[in-house]
Amino acid sequence: MKEKKEGIHIDPWGTTTIEDYERLIVDFGIEPFDDEIIKKLRANKYMRRGLIFGHRGFDVVLDAILNEKPFAVMSGIKNSGPFHLGSLMTASEIVYWQQEYGVFASYCIADYETYADNRIPYDESLEIAIDNAADILALGLDHKNSHIYRQSAEERVMELALLAGANVTTATMRAVYGEITNFGLYLSALIQVADILLPEIDDFGGPKPVIVPVGADQDPHIRLTRDIAKKLRTKSGKAFVTPCGTFHKLMKGLDGSDKMSKRNPMSYFDLNEDFESIEYKLDNAFTGGRPTAEEQKKLGGIPEICPIYELCMFHFVEDDKKMIEVYNDCKAGTLLCGEHKQEVIEMVLNWLKEHRRKKEQKIDFAREILLG
Amino acid sequence: MKEKKEGIHIDPWGTTTIEDYERLIVDFGIEPFDDEIIKKLRANKYMRRGLIFGHRGFDVVLDAILNEKPFAVMSGIKNSGPFHLGSLMTASEIVYWQQEYGVFASYCIADYETYADNRIPYDESLEIAIDNAADILALGLDHKNSHIYRQSAEERVMELALLAGANVTTATMRAVYGEITNFGLYLSALIQVADILLPEIDDFGGPKPVIVPVGADQDPHIRLTRDIAKKLRTKSGKAFVTPCGTFHKLMKGLDGSDKMSKRNPMSYFDLNEDFESIEYKLDNAFTGGRPTAEEQKKLGGIPEICPIYELCMFHFVEDDKKMIEVYNDCKAGTLLCGEHKQEVIEMVLNWLKEHRRKKEQKIDFAREILLG
Repeated sequence: MKEKKEGIHIDPWGTTTIEDYERLIVDFGIEPFDDEIIKKLRANKYMRRGLIFGHRGFDVVLDAILNEKPFAVMSGIKNSGPFHLGSLMTASEIVYWQQEYGVFASYCIADYETYADNRIPYDESLEIAIDNAADILALGLDHKNSHIYRQSAEERVMELALLAGANVTTATMRAVYGEITNFGLYLSALIQVADILLPEIDDFGGPKPVIVPVGADQDPHIRLTRDIAKKLRTKSGKAFVTPCGTFHKLMKGLDGSDKMSKRNPMSYFDLNEDFESIEYKLDNAFTGGRPTAEEQKKLGGIPEICPIYELCMFHFVEDDKKMIEVYNDCKAGTLLCGEHKQEVIEMVLNWLKEHRRKKEQKIDFAREILLG
Repeated sequence: MKEKKEGIHIDPWGTTTIEDYERLIVDFGIEPFDDEIIKKLRANKYMRRGLIFGHRGFDVVLDAILNEKPFAVMSGIKNSGPFHLGSLMTASEIVYWQQEYGVFASYCIADYETYADNRIPYDESLEIAIDNAADILALGLDHKNSHIYRQSAEERVMELALLAGANVTTATMRAVYGEITNFGLYLSALIQVADILLPEIDDFGGPKPVIVPVGADQDPHIRLTRDIAKKLRTKSGKAFVTPCGTFHKLMKGLDGSDKMSKRNPMSYFDLNEDFESIEYKLDNAFTGGRPTAEEQKKLGGIPEICPIYELCMFHFVEDDKKMIEVYNDCKAGTLLCGEHKQEVIEMVLNWLKEHRRKKEQKIDFAREILLG
């Protein structure tokens, strides 16, 4: 807490690296997403594998599940580019909650943030928004039980954002986000508060617990929203249920860098990328391997630091047994990096082929949802 | 300029007293609204009497008048209470521009500011908004060439405010307004930027000069708007014409205090107030009179410091010759305060009777405009 007060902030727009998830729990008050919670859920691979490591206020959801009361899930994407593995993670979490618990899902395409942060005007980011929406539909989001929207087209979000901003002090904004040069990013934060509160407004059936699955770097938005939610009422005068966040770990860069980043094209790939390019990046990825095959056979690999292993963990291997097998084989030196990379490349490209086939069928509908 | 940089700000929400209008011209860069300008206009009493003392960027309006090009006028009211003499001044200026030059008028009822600053929710301030709208209609605003709206109901304003906020730095917000505890007041400022830009959007015929007649304390909003306007485009891609402000002096309190203020009921009256109450306040008003009638007859009064004289100057005496007469008679000691007060009370109450009669006929229509 001391360090935080001295001005260390998690920066949801920036380049802060989350080196230590434990620190988020100790210093920032994120609670562990532990076995006690997981055993009460029909857990997905992210939960079982500890990739969702923390939460804020998740008890209201457990309560809703126990008492068969409604809850909702929401998250969003900044439409400054195609889906990448981070957007895939969040979107998959939304689809999980909807499919497993039948809940209403709200998916925000953050074109205000895209404008404020990346200077891409709404009309220019529209095609990306449609592409993003098609991705989550292809992942299985049921549009009949969802609200997919762009911030710039959602009057209720703009209205709520302004109300939110009238219920916060400048000191709080600075405490949560630090001193930001671009004032639009403070506004973007308030709009995200509104995005998170949207599923609770009267139009969507009124207050209910809302889960916001996000990367650990998005915690400031969750904290701010929880703070403001307590002060607001819906138009019919009801108190908001304080929304909760679940936090997933962020993947390392494929090239061994701290995080996947657009500034560093070899660190990541996006879901629209040429197969040749993806194959090239995976082929040249950093691994937990040893300098020579000889050494690796003798000492074994280090899956803990391997982005290829992480790719399997996060996205492309559903079966936990298969993961354990890979882990053991790597450690034993019987699975070498070259071989494993080829296997992973095949898995990734097969998954992408299938995803693109599904997405192709959703693109017109995505356009209709966002423009219709 | 030095003082300004060290953190002296004009505070549009607060209690700053403008002691010296010259200082606004010297330190803040407001330009004098001088005879060179006035002679090019069909000047109203505020201009002729130097009550409108300054402007920012008025040349675009002179140019439009000279070249018979369209321009517009806009201002607003915070609907936290009935019209008072300050709201009357601004509204009268709008009506003047519209009637004298046939221009489009936009009148913003600032219910966001009323919420952010006074914690009155939109639905609770609605009846006041209707009352305020009826006042400006009674003053002669032609609704067919106007847009009267509440901020909370004007989606285009919310949208523009958010775009404005993405085109300003936190440092600029702080330089213009100082450090404000209530973050909502920064948002309120951005919404006022949007209010000012609204007459220039494509829906209202696109970019054109806009005059914003305001009290000198509202200069920060004008400066901020002029700064941001240069960076924005309308939806059809046109550059905004930088809006201009004209600044009027603020009246002193009736009780001799520095300014009329709700915190001090004897300092002002509102247009809905009981006649008895208004009469009582005027009867007990501070004047520029001497301690005794004897002395006043000998030395004459001091109209320069007299709120009763100011009342005539600002609002209730149209004829300049009559004003000069009053001034001379006061100075000569032939017009005593008691007598003048009774005369002014009669003028004020007669004016109010007639205004209320006209307003009565506008109230249903005002409701229709704001809700319809």
